[in-house]
Amino acid sequence: MTILQSILFVTGNKHKLADVKNILGDRFEIKNHDYDLPEIQGSVKEVVLEKCKAAAEIVKGPVLVEDTWLGYKAMNGLPGPYVKWFLNSVGPDGLYRMVSAFDTKEAQAGCTFGYTKGPGKPIHLFEGILDGQVVPPRGSNGFGWNSIFQPNGHKHTYAEMTDEERNSCSHRYLAAMKLRDFLESEKN
Amino acid sequence: MTILQSILFVTGNKHKLADVKNILGDRFEIKNHDYDLPEIQGSVKEVVLEKCKAAAEIVKGPVLVEDTWLGYKAMNGLPGPYVKWFLNSVGPDGLYRMVSAFDTKEAQAGCTFGYTKGPGKPIHLFEGILDGQVVPPRGSNGFGWNSIFQPNGHKHTYAEMTDEERNSCSHRYLAAMKLRDFLESEKN
Repeated sequence: MTILQSILFVTGNKHKLADVKNILGDRFEIKNHDYDLPEIQGSVKEVVLEKCKAAAEIVKGPVLVEDTWLGYKAMNGLPGPYVKWFLNSVGPDGLYRMVSAFDTKEAQAGCTFGYTKGPGKPIHLFEGILDGQVVPPRGSNGFGWNSIFQPNGHKHTYAEMTDEERNSCSHRYLAAMKLRDFLESEKN
Repeated sequence: MTILQSILFVTGNKHKLADVKNILGDRFEIKNHDYDLPEIQGSVKEVVLEKCKAAAEIVKGPVLVEDTWLGYKAMNGLPGPYVKWFLNSVGPDGLYRMVSAFDTKEAQAGCTFGYTKGPGKPIHLFEGILDGQVVPPRGSNGFGWNSIFQPNGHKHTYAEMTDEERNSCSHRYLAAMKLRDFLESEKN
């Protein structure tokens, strides 16, 4: 297939970059830059809108940003966008332990992309959500909290899947498909 | 005693306002306004610096802001400044339950005031930290997560103390004493 478009993905996370390249790379050239973008406290949508706005003002052109979250049903969606702080502080095992005393281990993994054509232009959000369970850590592939998230209907955690398996079902895949559809419709 | 100074405390939390009036009210007139200030993700100091900067730009004059946190030793200081989101989502009982599967229930309650004379002026931070334990909820006085925090050396949680008892030992008291000393030294 021909490359439709080059996209600047602002992230400092090489794993997220690799995932997005894997998922969208056959149709889009994914470039990358790591700017230090402000992240606010609030809903995921608010976080992504602010990041996208800030990135567009730095880049002065089209830009893609992303935020990932893990929401526990027992905690009404938290740690949500704050999951990265908990991951850094207590690791995947601690993230499981946090919810271990609650009745339900149901969780949602979420990814929200923000895309804009430039400063002052509309910001488009593309959200992918996958239902699953939080489990004691299993597996060593993947990154972040992949070892404790087992999507419903699967026997494996993200970290027990190959990258290809994960990237064909994940929350990031679901969001990236919406982003791809939007970008392709813009080109027609 | 004579009132030294009038201070504008930007907060939407009437309980925090009452505490600060109780602690500083004999020397300072505490006025209040509730502006919607941005809160970033980051360390408490970063959160307070940004809030204070934003408040000074709105008020165009001297302003006091505050952020409160509860840090679990088992979680290396988290939920920290994100504690309010967890409190809203799971309540004090859930905040205890989060840490119940960890070995230690040690915690620190923290309060950081930010004070500046106006936009572009230096921002002064005053931090109070109190060591204690997170316990299953006890008591009905106080607010927020007061029912699950028992300071070391005390047999009662904050919520089992009277307001006067809490305001003579709390993390907010410790921070307010530093703020008071600074403001009084400025007047001499």
